[in-house]
Amino acid sequence: MATTAQRFALASRPVGEPSSENFRLENIEIPEPGPGQVLLRTRYLSLDPYVRGRISGVRAYAEPTPIGSAPPGDTVSAVVKSEDPSLSAGDVVLADIGWQTRAVIDARAVRKLDPAVAPVTTALGVLGMPGLTAYSGLLTIGKPAPGETVVVAAATGPVGSLAGQLAKIKGARAVGIAGGPQKTEYLRSTLGFDAAVDHRAPDFADQLAAATPQGIDVYFENVGGAVFNAVFPLLNTYARVPVCGLVSRYNETEPGSSLASNLMRQVLSKSLTIRGFLVTEFWVQQFDRFQADVGQWIREGKVGYREDIVDGFETIPDAFRGLLRGENFGKLIVRVSD
Amino acid sequence: MATTAQRFALASRPVGEPSSENFRLENIEIPEPGPGQVLLRTRYLSLDPYVRGRISGVRAYAEPTPIGSAPPGDTVSAVVKSEDPSLSAGDVVLADIGWQTRAVIDARAVRKLDPAVAPVTTALGVLGMPGLTAYSGLLTIGKPAPGETVVVAAATGPVGSLAGQLAKIKGARAVGIAGGPQKTEYLRSTLGFDAAVDHRAPDFADQLAAATPQGIDVYFENVGGAVFNAVFPLLNTYARVPVCGLVSRYNETEPGSSLASNLMRQVLSKSLTIRGFLVTEFWVQQFDRFQADVGQWIREGKVGYREDIVDGFETIPDAFRGLLRGENFGKLIVRVSD
Repeated sequence: MATTAQRFALASRPVGEPSSENFRLENIEIPEPGPGQVLLRTRYLSLDPYVRGRISGVRAYAEPTPIGSAPPGDTVSAVVKSEDPSLSAGDVVLADIGWQTRAVIDARAVRKLDPAVAPVTTALGVLGMPGLTAYSGLLTIGKPAPGETVVVAAATGPVGSLAGQLAKIKGARAVGIAGGPQKTEYLRSTLGFDAAVDHRAPDFADQLAAATPQGIDVYFENVGGAVFNAVFPLLNTYARVPVCGLVSRYNETEPGSSLASNLMRQVLSKSLTIRGFLVTEFWVQQFDRFQADVGQWIREGKVGYREDIVDGFETIPDAFRGLLRGENFGKLIVRVSD
Repeated sequence: MATTAQRFALASRPVGEPSSENFRLENIEIPEPGPGQVLLRTRYLSLDPYVRGRISGVRAYAEPTPIGSAPPGDTVSAVVKSEDPSLSAGDVVLADIGWQTRAVIDARAVRKLDPAVAPVTTALGVLGMPGLTAYSGLLTIGKPAPGETVVVAAATGPVGSLAGQLAKIKGARAVGIAGGPQKTEYLRSTLGFDAAVDHRAPDFADQLAAATPQGIDVYFENVGGAVFNAVFPLLNTYARVPVCGLVSRYNETEPGSSLASNLMRQVLSKSLTIRGFLVTEFWVQQFDRFQADVGQWIREGKVGYREDIVDGFETIPDAFRGLLRGENFGKLIVRVSD
């Protein structure tokens, strides 16, 4: 016997901030589960910023939500009826049902939760996708060292709050950015952040500089926009900036309006690494190996090189100006004497 | 007995493109070498773009050249007189004498060159600082894999020409960018680049796209500006962008005029890493470890978390809009049913 469910269907694609007209509440019929399937009832739905990208209709790293379908979202769901031996009625599972109260889904596509291990809602937050975002981004990319300063944006959110606490566990100084005094107080008092700055304060940039007297070694970015602009001048040499989100820009209607904003959007959507370097960083460790490798490749004819040699000490200023205009062809060298 | 030398002294700091008035040719007296010192005669001087930064007077990663001193530069020099047992008159050494024909320097500060191993000028190029820049930047940061596409800017220069050839040795496809048909022909015919594109062509961006049908996996950046703008949209997911120079911007008088340009300048001068990521990249490898670690830290009281639970399926659209405005406080979860 079929059952009914409610869902919010995407009625139209939002331009700028979503409005209530973009979503249509409707009743739908849910079929009986077939072999290997389960009927789920949604207990908790996770709302996450990435959904804004999915409903925009732009193909990024995942297919957009079709018009008429429910937006995606992880759910903690109760098994109502199971046609698979791995699950029974009453089990609690993690699934991606989206904005819908009931659904039939393959049993293989869900993960059973044990309420005795942790509250089931943590599978949507600190022990779920947001938690892993903080864990992998901070530890694999940010790599905070003891004594370094880690700044976290949206620091009371599920990603930022764990990122800041992981920084503390690794011996770093954690500075959180959040909106409003209630949130900054929570960061300091409850989560043990070393400092917290309110990005709504008129002197936010000055407060952030005061809270990071040793500069910033890791900036965990998930906001973008004005927060990024205040952080950027404070970054130390060799700072790392894991970028997992740009929530302040998700409602932007003109993504090309700022080159820097557009650049950071692409850094995010393509998981780009942009890494500045000076050769001095590698001199001690790599010079001998480099000389051996490239010297051999030159002798083997695998590497060619070209020199652009100009004559006379007095030509230096003109040659240098030409270098900056790209007029040389090969390594520019001044022959001063024989 | 003292000897005389010529040098170009920095007479004034250039604004925009350097002019001949910025440098003053003068004669100076060179003292006799003391114990442990050598008197050198410059045979070859290397001219490199980094010098533009040193003479600008802005403190970056190295001290600026003082007014009245010679700009820096590696030299291949002949030992005229030695007061150190490690060197003899007639030896050829690598030193940083700068824009000067003779100098007295500590013997420890020079490196003896063996003309039998390689032409001595290569110590200024393919086997020297520019070569190591290409080698470390491409292999340590760019990490080209076989079959990937590597695009190199300023590709006939000493850094770019080696970077492209190293890409070929590693089995990647090398595409060079250079100014004018003579240079692009050299890249294809002499150095074996798979393709070469003239950045002066009016349809440069289209030509670059045509030369990189599989997109760009590594962009070795040492130019910036218009070349970067054409490259950026072609970067593939997980592309790497080692940034070792921005020569097109070194004569810029308003570094803040473009946010993207300013961002790339700081990425360079601070050796920053900017790395976008999606948690899906780490899911398989890190999820179990993450659950074990963070679960334990929660039980030990080292990690706290906060949930912002709103009630009722019908609240979803409003809650989602609030999320994008930062109105939630903790992980936003909708309780749909008990």
